[in-house]
Amino acid sequence: MTGPSKPTKITSKAIAQDFLDSYDTFLFDCDGVLWLGKHLLPKIVETLDLLSSSGKKTYFVTNNSTKSRAAYSKKFASFGIMVDPEQIFTSGYASALHVRDVLKLVPGQDKIWVFGESGITEELKLMGYESLGCDDPRLDEPFDISESPFFTEPLDPAVKCVIAGLDTRVNYHRLAASLRYLQQPEVTFVATNIDSTFPNKGFILPGAGSTIESLACASGREPAACGKPNLNMLNAIVTAEHLERSKTCMVGDRLNTDIRFGVDGKLGGTLLVLTGIETEERATDATGDYALPKFFANKLGDLYELTQEES
Amino acid sequence: MTGPSKPTKITSKAIAQDFLDSYDTFLFDCDGVLWLGKHLLPKIVETLDLLSSSGKKTYFVTNNSTKSRAAYSKKFASFGIMVDPEQIFTSGYASALHVRDVLKLVPGQDKIWVFGESGITEELKLMGYESLGCDDPRLDEPFDISESPFFTEPLDPAVKCVIAGLDTRVNYHRLAASLRYLQQPEVTFVATNIDSTFPNKGFILPGAGSTIESLACASGREPAACGKPNLNMLNAIVTAEHLERSKTCMVGDRLNTDIRFGVDGKLGGTLLVLTGIETEERATDATGDYALPKFFANKLGDLYELTQEES
Repeated sequence: MTGPSKPTKITSKAIAQDFLDSYDTFLFDCDGVLWLGKHLLPKIVETLDLLSSSGKKTYFVTNNSTKSRAAYSKKFASFGIMVDPEQIFTSGYASALHVRDVLKLVPGQDKIWVFGESGITEELKLMGYESLGCDDPRLDEPFDISESPFFTEPLDPAVKCVIAGLDTRVNYHRLAASLRYLQQPEVTFVATNIDSTFPNKGFILPGAGSTIESLACASGREPAACGKPNLNMLNAIVTAEHLERSKTCMVGDRLNTDIRFGVDGKLGGTLLVLTGIETEERATDATGDYALPKFFANKLGDLYELTQEES
Repeated sequence: MTGPSKPTKITSKAIAQDFLDSYDTFLFDCDGVLWLGKHLLPKIVETLDLLSSSGKKTYFVTNNSTKSRAAYSKKFASFGIMVDPEQIFTSGYASALHVRDVLKLVPGQDKIWVFGESGITEELKLMGYESLGCDDPRLDEPFDISESPFFTEPLDPAVKCVIAGLDTRVNYHRLAASLRYLQQPEVTFVATNIDSTFPNKGFILPGAGSTIESLACASGREPAACGKPNLNMLNAIVTAEHLERSKTCMVGDRLNTDIRFGVDGKLGGTLLVLTGIETEERATDATGDYALPKFFANKLGDLYELTQEES
């Protein structure tokens, strides 16, 4: 009996070429893989151009729900990377797909209460769903139960789902009003993603998962989570884009979300890059309680640099 | 082998008198027992006067951490009940006692970061401790990691503890700054109480426990909880007031906090009143997964009314 083979480090032209030849589709995590905060990592544009000119399909998969796919494609453009919104899958979009394809809510009729930012509501709107909550300026007012329209007025019976995601405008008013909808058993509870934290400028900040945990605790309910590593997200991409799993490779910087996402989703390959939070030691430690990648590399740009070397 | 005896309902002068004769000290939960929101329940003043004129000691135990004991005694006065701040134990005070007596932090030297309201900081100040966070108006500003003094400036190394409690001014700035302290292993994490919700004007609102859960999730840490039903709180009262447990009775309206608090704390008696959230059915259901009270009554004022009946 043999266990899974040891991860292969991409360190030569031959290995890089073999890796590229094995897949026709690449799914990329973004932060920590393509860029770090506002800084593009080395040889990213060149690597993506290489894939594109080799006829590979590329998709970008992010747990960031604060931006819509359209807004996210502008972020790519700011780095000089031209990406179609259709190549992008955010956890906000995955949540909207869940509402449409799993919950089968009816556009123009059923409504969604959003505890989160416009990256969720814009995707819902594109599918014809009306959102409540989110940017409503009345939620920015200090909470007064006798004055808040979200308590003095009845609940909207058309609301069939609460989607919760990262919202840096979190306040007691938003939490209390969202909880009121979550107390209705017929209202489904959906989370964009459950990352407890995320890195920013050298600090670790509270993630979507931490505020969602607050709503889960108060309501006594567990949400259906849509982002990585949840397979709802991968299944949505595979179905929408008719991908062949065995010919698809997930590229990311986190073992417990990105690589797990690819392994659990039975993709043909996984590539861990060490430009994010993981180390070579962890990437090759078979005694850890996490899935190991099939390949790993110091940086994504190594694919370009190695394949340009003279033989 | 016999199980615990069935709860006795206080329905006659004889039972009421027997109950009163069994204890020399009574600990009261407040909301749901003495008052409901802003409405005093019937015959409360008379019942407390009866206890006082019979030489009984009375204490008031609340998980509300937003008010100090001094502020809480004013609330009693507004109902016409004269209570000394020393008779009151709030979860904010219990947290301050924990800092002093268990963590043994040094007043005038060690500092405490407070995610919560002034009911915590005022009690800390009375013990000589300096608090950070809490009412600092800079925390009311929208969060900007490049501008926030809580991120552009180094952490205060004198901070040795984070106390978290209910704060209806919760926002991302407070969560992120509190998390930064919680990422320091030498900083202890204390929670005033872990109630996930609380009732207000017919609604169920997010409680201290729900926002604390958010910090616990983001930091990957579990706090030491000080409020009911945690015995830290009862032990603090018993020690401070030299109470004899067998002669002490806990009176409350919640089985899973108040009655459990008395039972786990091995007090001589427990009295459940049905003016809060519990029903007679639940109070006498021996198949439930909660501790039953020794006594129960429709309302606390029955003690006064029954003992005034002519024999």
